[in-house]
Amino acid sequence: MNKIEHIGIAVRDLKITGDLYEQLLNTNVYKMEEVTGEAVKTAFLQAGPNKIELLEATSADSPIAKFIDKKGEGIHHIAFEVNDIKAEMARLKAKGFVLLSDEPKPGADNKLVCFVHPKSAGGVLVELVQEGYNA
Amino acid sequence: MNKIEHIGIAVRDLKITGDLYEQLLNTNVYKMEEVTGEAVKTAFLQAGPNKIELLEATSADSPIAKFIDKKGEGIHHIAFEVNDIKAEMARLKAKGFVLLSDEPKPGADNKLVCFVHPKSAGGVLVELVQEGYNA
Repeated sequence: MNKIEHIGIAVRDLKITGDLYEQLLNTNVYKMEEVTGEAVKTAFLQAGPNKIELLEATSADSPIAKFIDKKGEGIHHIAFEVNDIKAEMARLKAKGFVLLSDEPKPGADNKLVCFVHPKSAGGVLVELVQEGYNA
Repeated sequence: MNKIEHIGIAVRDLKITGDLYEQLLNTNVYKMEEVTGEAVKTAFLQAGPNKIELLEATSADSPIAKFIDKKGEGIHHIAFEVNDIKAEMARLKAKGFVLLSDEPKPGADNKLVCFVHPKSAGGVLVELVQEGYNA
């Protein structure tokens, strides 16, 4: 794993918490993006080599809406950057980790992504991300 | 904020989850340390410029024991590295953020630390860390 690519934080209101995180991190939201497949709107802030991804549900069926209903606002997942997501998925599968998809999927911020089940990772939803759709 | 210095993860058993994270991150726990003031044992793993800090309570009064009782194992806090923690604390106070101490405190891994109340940060417990006790 190269680094923590981003931390995903589930929020009720992207505008309100985006403003708050701009003050907290002393920086600006540099991108907002909707990921229709996951029913979320996202806002990104940079902290050096790492990013904070704020996530607001766009429908009651969104995984983010369900997360907030159950646990309230807060940290939703940790994403680690990898060079070769398919190789990393194969390595983890062989070690017994449970992956949430058999193939990498397109995520926000022009990434290929795959999630590892929290039961496999000490209660933490872990995302693998590889730069670029066509890699 | 320079970067995400580490993510703190509350775990029931440092050995079991340490082994799991060694496999997940394909690296080794490079340090274990007890922080008596916080009643926790910690294990650190590296992911490029970032660290994962696993935290096990050493007493039932530990904030980590209380967190696990309430929410189960999972992500406990995000720590951001700053150059001048006192200046950063003053900046955040002036913006209306609620800090959990008036002065920086010694934390694990030879750091000066201060926590920002989750109510000030969208449900996320945020830690500021500055390298070095004597800085």
